[in-house]
Amino acid sequence: MEDCAFCNADGDFLVVPQKGRLWITTECGRLQVSPGEVVVLPQGFRFSVDLPDGPSRGYVAEIFGTHFQLPDLGPIGANGLAAPRDFLVPGAWFEEGHCPEYTIIQKFGGELFTAKQDFSPFNVVAWHGNYVPYKYDLSKFCPYNTVLFDHSDPSINTVLTAPTEKPGVALLDFVIFPPRWLVAEHTFRPPYYHRNCMSEFMGLIHGGYEAKADGFLPGGASLHICMTPHGPDTKTYEATIAQGNEAGPHKLTDTMAFMFESCLIPRVCPWALDSPAIDPDYYKCWIGLKSHFSPEGTKDPIEARENGPKDSR
Amino acid sequence: MEDCAFCNADGDFLVVPQKGRLWITTECGRLQVSPGEVVVLPQGFRFSVDLPDGPSRGYVAEIFGTHFQLPDLGPIGANGLAAPRDFLVPGAWFEEGHCPEYTIIQKFGGELFTAKQDFSPFNVVAWHGNYVPYKYDLSKFCPYNTVLFDHSDPSINTVLTAPTEKPGVALLDFVIFPPRWLVAEHTFRPPYYHRNCMSEFMGLIHGGYEAKADGFLPGGASLHICMTPHGPDTKTYEATIAQGNEAGPHKLTDTMAFMFESCLIPRVCPWALDSPAIDPDYYKCWIGLKSHFSPEGTKDPIEARENGPKDSR
Amino acid sequence: MEDCAFCNADGDFLVVPQKGRLWITTECGRLQVSPGEVVVLPQGFRFSVDLPDGPSRGYVAEIFGTHFQLPDLGPIGANGLAAPRDFLVPGAWFEEGHCPEYTIIQKFGGELFTAKQDFSPFNVVAWHGNYVPYKYDLSKFCPYNTVLFDHSDPSINTVLTAPTEKPGVALLDFVIFPPRWLVAEHTFRPPYYHRNCMSEFMGLIHGGYEAKADGFLPGGASLHICMTPHGPDTKTYEATIAQGNEAGPHKLTDTMAFMFESCLIPRVCPWALDSPAIDPDYYKCWIGLKSHFSPEGTKDPIEARENGPKDSR
Amino acid sequence: MEDCAFCNADGDFLVVPQKGRLWITTECGRLQVSPGEVVVLPQGFRFSVDLPDGPSRGYVAEIFGTHFQLPDLGPIGANGLAAPRDFLVPGAWFEEGHCPEYTIIQKFGGELFTAKQDFSPFNVVAWHGNYVPYKYDLSKFCPYNTVLFDHSDPSINTVLTAPTEKPGVALLDFVIFPPRWLVAEHTFRPPYYHRNCMSEFMGLIHGGYEAKADGFLPGGASLHICMTPHGPDTKTYEATIAQGNEAGPHKLTDTMAFMFESCLIPRVCPWALDSPAIDPDYYKCWIGLKSHFSPEGTKDPIEARENGPKDSR
Amino acid sequence: MEDCAFCNADGDFLVVPQKGRLWITTECGRLQVSPGEVVVLPQGFRFSVDLPDGPSRGYVAEIFGTHFQLPDLGPIGANGLAAPRDFLVPGAWFEEGHCPEYTIIQKFGGELFTAKQDFSPFNVVAWHGNYVPYKYDLSKFCPYNTVLFDHSDPSINTVLTAPTEKPGVALLDFVIFPPRWLVAEHTFRPPYYHRNCMSEFMGLIHGGYEAKADGFLPGGASLHICMTPHGPDTKTYEATIAQGNEAGPHKLTDTMAFMFESCLIPRVCPWALDSPAIDPDYYKCWIGLKSHFSPEGTKDPIEARENGPKDSR
Amino acid sequence: MEDCAFCNADGDFLVVPQKGRLWITTECGRLQVSPGEVVVLPQGFRFSVDLPDGPSRGYVAEIFGTHFQLPDLGPIGANGLAAPRDFLVPGAWFEEGHCPEYTIIQKFGGELFTAKQDFSPFNVVAWHGNYVPYKYDLSKFCPYNTVLFDHSDPSINTVLTAPTEKPGVALLDFVIFPPRWLVAEHTFRPPYYHRNCMSEFMGLIHGGYEAKADGFLPGGASLHICMTPHGPDTKTYEATIAQGNEAGPHKLTDTMAFMFESCLIPRVCPWALDSPAIDPDYYKCWIGLKSHFSPEGTKDPIEARENGPKDSR
Repeated sequence: MEDCAFCNADGDFLVVPQKGRLWITTECGRLQVSPGEVVVLPQGFRFSVDLPDGPSRGYVAEIFGTHFQLPDLGPIGANGLAAPRDFLVPGAWFEEGHCPEYTIIQKFGGELFTAKQDFSPFNVVAWHGNYVPYKYDLSKFCPYNTVLFDHSDPSINTVLTAPTEKPGVALLDFVIFPPRWLVAEHTFRPPYYHRNCMSEFMGLIHGGYEAKADGFLPGGASLHICMTPHGPDTKTYEATIAQGNEAGPHKLTDTMAFMFESCLIPRVCPWALDSPAIDPDYYKCWIGLKSHFSPEGTKDPIEARENGPKDSR
Repeated sequence: MEDCAFCNADGDFLVVPQKGRLWITTECGRLQVSPGEVVVLPQGFRFSVDLPDGPSRGYVAEIFGTHFQLPDLGPIGANGLAAPRDFLVPGAWFEEGHCPEYTIIQKFGGELFTAKQDFSPFNVVAWHGNYVPYKYDLSKFCPYNTVLFDHSDPSINTVLTAPTEKPGVALLDFVIFPPRWLVAEHTFRPPYYHRNCMSEFMGLIHGGYEAKADGFLPGGASLHICMTPHGPDTKTYEATIAQGNEAGPHKLTDTMAFMFESCLIPRVCPWALDSPAIDPDYYKCWIGLKSHFSPEGTKDPIEARENGPKDSR
Repeated sequence: MEDCAFCNADGDFLVVPQKGRLWITTECGRLQVSPGEVVVLPQGFRFSVDLPDGPSRGYVAEIFGTHFQLPDLGPIGANGLAAPRDFLVPGAWFEEGHCPEYTIIQKFGGELFTAKQDFSPFNVVAWHGNYVPYKYDLSKFCPYNTVLFDHSDPSINTVLTAPTEKPGVALLDFVIFPPRWLVAEHTFRPPYYHRNCMSEFMGLIHGGYEAKADGFLPGGASLHICMTPHGPDTKTYEATIAQGNEAGPHKLTDTMAFMFESCLIPRVCPWALDSPAIDPDYYKCWIGLKSHFSPEGTKDPIEARENGPKDSR
Repeated sequence: MEDCAFCNADGDFLVVPQKGRLWITTECGRLQVSPGEVVVLPQGFRFSVDLPDGPSRGYVAEIFGTHFQLPDLGPIGANGLAAPRDFLVPGAWFEEGHCPEYTIIQKFGGELFTAKQDFSPFNVVAWHGNYVPYKYDLSKFCPYNTVLFDHSDPSINTVLTAPTEKPGVALLDFVIFPPRWLVAEHTFRPPYYHRNCMSEFMGLIHGGYEAKADGFLPGGASLHICMTPHGPDTKTYEATIAQGNEAGPHKLTDTMAFMFESCLIPRVCPWALDSPAIDPDYYKCWIGLKSHFSPEGTKDPIEARENGPKDSR
Repeated sequence: MEDCAFCNADGDFLVVPQKGRLWITTECGRLQVSPGEVVVLPQGFRFSVDLPDGPSRGYVAEIFGTHFQLPDLGPIGANGLAAPRDFLVPGAWFEEGHCPEYTIIQKFGGELFTAKQDFSPFNVVAWHGNYVPYKYDLSKFCPYNTVLFDHSDPSINTVLTAPTEKPGVALLDFVIFPPRWLVAEHTFRPPYYHRNCMSEFMGLIHGGYEAKADGFLPGGASLHICMTPHGPDTKTYEATIAQGNEAGPHKLTDTMAFMFESCLIPRVCPWALDSPAIDPDYYKCWIGLKSHFSPEGTKDPIEARENGPKDSR
Repeated sequence: MEDCAFCNADGDFLVVPQKGRLWITTECGRLQVSPGEVVVLPQGFRFSVDLPDGPSRGYVAEIFGTHFQLPDLGPIGANGLAAPRDFLVPGAWFEEGHCPEYTIIQKFGGELFTAKQDFSPFNVVAWHGNYVPYKYDLSKFCPYNTVLFDHSDPSINTVLTAPTEKPGVALLDFVIFPPRWLVAEHTFRPPYYHRNCMSEFMGLIHGGYEAKADGFLPGGASLHICMTPHGPDTKTYEATIAQGNEAGPHKLTDTMAFMFESCLIPRVCPWALDSPAIDPDYYKCWIGLKSHFSPEGTKDPIEARENGPKDSR
């Protein structure tokens, strides 16, 4: 982006690089962002990106009318998940001098507009305030989970949330699945089968993903739209069942998957639908799933913890 | 409590039996409560208690002007900690007939008043609504914790909370320390040393307590008043340090400690202060604590995770 | 719906049967719904409907992005209008076995999609939680109204409300006009003439409707769009005026009208606009309305209660 | 109060005259208040009272730290109960001239202080704003109630409420029991037997009170403290039972009772406890109450509406 | 508008006349509105406008789904900006008689509909409530600003705000720039250069505007769309710099500019884009702007107040 | 405070030094505080104070159950009053080594307790979070006020506020009266005469105070309790009246008064009441105040801006 800067007048970008570093210059200063880190470029900031490692690849989410914030931690208390002090902002940096044909590309109303000026936009000498680009290293995330039985909702791994005005409903949650210990007993540990009022876009930054034994590679993506049932593939499912209740503590390593989860229904653009990268056989990962339910009760390998007699009420 | 019932006009009782079952008759019906369960008897209910196992022992907290509720789960989502369906209420039950000298003892304004009537107060044939006595089996609690590093605030184990009008400040939190897996790496795992704007009353229902190697027995209690520093005893501390960073997953078993944590400063009544059960040597559990800090940095057994170089900001 | 189930991925259905029972099978179990009852089928549930009485008829409202709830009762207190305990949910019920050509029709983004599977979707053995289909018998509703003078807003008869984020503004209110006593003195008792920021869709389940002497039959519907004035027809108006202030207590019987009232402007689809069921003469019900106002003051049959001298201020 | 004015620095007075008019002069102007009207004199206003009818009598409530407001009407909508336009404020009025020994009596911290000044405090020429004394004529109140079955909570008759910070909990509700129609069918119509987390102070302005056949006279008062059971006297109860389900519409006339209902526990001062006006036999009004319950079900005169078979759930 | 009335079923109009009085008849009565005053005509009111001074000119904003209110004053306290008592509403006024061809034009869903009736809509004899047309004289506005140094945000001059559900984000703010004193020392006093998440439509009622030395005339308008940088023209900027820090108190007189500021992106209609009144040279007002920044620090005419040494932190 | 530290377990201290610097050591590090600065020492921090200039003097406010925060700025927008970046916190600092007789004095429940330890409490090597001592230089405050006419409420000068749960009601507001321009026309510019639901404690850090011509000196204090009228002394009043409407812009210089304003009623302790520093003649500052009101209207020197004819309404 030689003598050229971009500006999004419509909303904020959350960028998740998967391959190749990004050297980003903004009006507030410069940020170096590597795969494993994420960066937020808020609405209205001008920025340019250099690629020191050559071609890069990753994921971008754009949100409108709100900004990302840390989730309210609830009973987690004062510490946990992503810590405020691990979000890094640039120090002020500026450049001066004549730039006869500097181009500003502005995204506005979903279209791109171009303007010329004869100076660099990165001439901001100093700044204060809290409306500013920032980055975050996902390895700083402090994950929580159940530590005796049962399976947590994925919201437990929320890094950032873009709220709506409706409490508990996110325009976009950015959720990760980082390395962590699994210790739940008498529990089916992979992500459970479900359908959801939210739509789930998943990506993989490096390593493998616990719920797909095959076919979900770093740089790939899946989209499970609202109220479409989904869950682990057949291979993962059967392997888990085979293990039964004997699984002890197990540490997931070499993995960093993430989810963009939205209360809105995403549209898939024609460019993607027509892409050769589309996987037309995705649905086959669930072929062969079979019921292990037995009406006699607790004969199933994963013992139903809730099946015991209840206090009458 | 033959032909006699009690009623608290001032507030709600949370009862934590530690030894001996309680058979409780209320206007809404009957509840059998065993050690390991807790029961809430709301303001204004008449009840009587029978002790089928002989003398009983436990803990009682009384709250005024509010009621207990489940904590907002925040990022934990829809499931976890105490589940609504595990709180059990009595089925309607009544008795009729002449009781010539039935006594009602009413606690009102901190004093006890007595009235006589010639019928049982347990003559309520049916009821509906949600203002009702209830019990909860603490073994149903689904604990959460950190699953990679760091130590969670104890609020993560909140069973019930009696809120104030100030968000985040509890009149009384009822918190438990149940059996669970510890997996945090590079972390001092026992409860950390701290002081607190809340006052902490702790009790032990059965087993041992992870932060006191000696001297804290089932049926005992400790009180750490607001802004008084406290933490594990010397023996626990040194044992943890000795273990260093090599501790793998470890399951705490045979333990059920709890905490009543309040934003108000509790007064200790003369009866307790003068009791032979007072432990005058409690402070000695911290004698011999010594600093393991070394200004050279990471030589300390528990490696400081935050000590690495930071991104400049 | 033999070997076929429907699922609405877009929103919730509120179904108001007017003729013929509905036997509904859902993943949570089965509900029998008769005219006089209403049923809510939330977003994402698969269900099939059988018609034991042959062809059926009724009204359906669909809401997006929120769910129905009971209105906050305000000064009505703890009891009144629709009671929580009168909303009935199904008990768990499931079926197993091979269904080679089972069809799922999914409504998503306003379009219908079809999928085939070889098992019944009603294979859910047990469930817990509060996201579930439910029904309500409108005869259980406990109506309130003025009991000395004046005419209440129709909101007093709200059964269920689907809120927006703006307090007091409903995406959809479901309001009924059930049998009840009218006792207001010195008051024009039929629904008053008004125009409204909400749009009002009315239907009639059985009997007559108090504000339309003719032409509004069970199974019919009217739509008064936002800010369009409306009120009783001429016949009802003149009959009320003729009665004057002498009307004593009167019980409305054999009636069950309802209103879907929304802050959004409903569009009428071409199918309805072109239907032979359209009543092109509807506006004629107001022909002949004449002013009874007399500037001399209280000579009008309905004495103006507010016309007396006021305290100076 | 010749050359003398009173000022309450602690809180607001709500005055309910029962006998004799009050001519009140305030810094904002003058108000004439008759029995059947109520007046609020807010914290910090200086006022004097003249009694044109000779000795007067009534009730005064004092509230601290908040002010009275109209209740949120909830589903009642935009109109009903007390209307804002019926609260009347004084027009500005002032007096000038030398008053050599004018006395101000200030209530502050529960004690009375006296100051002398040489001018009238009623020298305010004009004012604006909404912090001002006001009066309300209770006959303007528009009462609501159930109009088919069941008995409303008394909150339905709230004229003014002084809120706490806790939604739904009032420091003081001012509730009236005015003339109105009773039409509920299959319902025990007098105030039901109950105990309450609020404390209830009742007074009678004129006429009789529906729940006490004898012994509650205009100018009298009763106090039912929190969690003390109470309800109609035996005579009222038996008369109602005798009437059975045959009661048709009935209009209560010649009555104006009221309640001060508070979430705080009122203390009764020694002056009142030692007064000859105390009724030591009050409890006797309930002697002879007997159970009409029959386990066989619906044989009781007031048919239990809820006793029919329920849908299984 | 002879025998013709208009009604907006979609939203509220805020009318800012710039030239010529408006005599407005509404169902609530009549308002005379002159340039320098503004008037709000809420959704659903029928009104007609007469022009006693011949052709008129001005600005109209339309808002949907909410209404205008006074801004919460925050630390300004109880008085300041626009006072409630300066908003004037009409007294009731009505006309009777036969109007054989009275036309109602209703704006609904962005289209115009016409209906005929044989009477005037202004036959409303009396009204009460607070949903009513009102006007405000802008010279009654009490402006606030900084009184030592620095430049206030324009929100300090908010007259009316139409809120969204998101705190702090306005659907439309109506802001004025009235005559007032400027006293800030060491401060660049004209509106600062900025870009904004809001879109700003400015108009001028009379006089000049402080940030545009030329070319912004009464009756004109400018639109600075969200995230487009803007500020004073070159002439204003250089004149301010030339003045340096020596400017003492200065009173802005003969000016009344205003801003409609919205969180939504306004569309400019073709009629406006094709108008000969468009100023194609608007951008030239900024040609020649040059940097006065000097890296040596405080040599610049406007001394940077923040440049002094800071406490280390 | 040699080998001695203080800790307040009850609440937070706001310290306003008036004479002599404070060198404060806390567990988070060291702060140097001079007259003209203020410092907040939160509940539970241990600190010691050294006095490099010899004996010191100032004001201390203590708050319970809450903490200070910046006021919500309302229409002031994003900048103004006290800026977050001007609140300075200490950098981490620690000391090690043997301190055989180190004393901790803890204020708890209003009493002082003493403990001995053999090390300095200032052994905290590093910290993070936002619960920390901080200081603020009052000369950084950016004051706002009216800039055309009228007199602002003192809340416009709020530096910090300790809120209650009731919006708009402060447990303690810390308000200052700094150097600033006065420009209001046709306005009585000194603090107006009033009485207040808040109690006002005023102090003077240096210079004079605009509303007291004599007798209020730096280091002095006044207390105007809730609902006690007060205002400028006679000399200030008459001088202002004499000036009439001719006052142009005027800059207040050499002044820094402040107010602790609370919704609670402060008690004056016997030590203060018995002090020789009490000014028994304070009330005499108002002797000789006389009315300038003339019923003929605008003859009074300060022309009543609101007296002109109003639009009829």
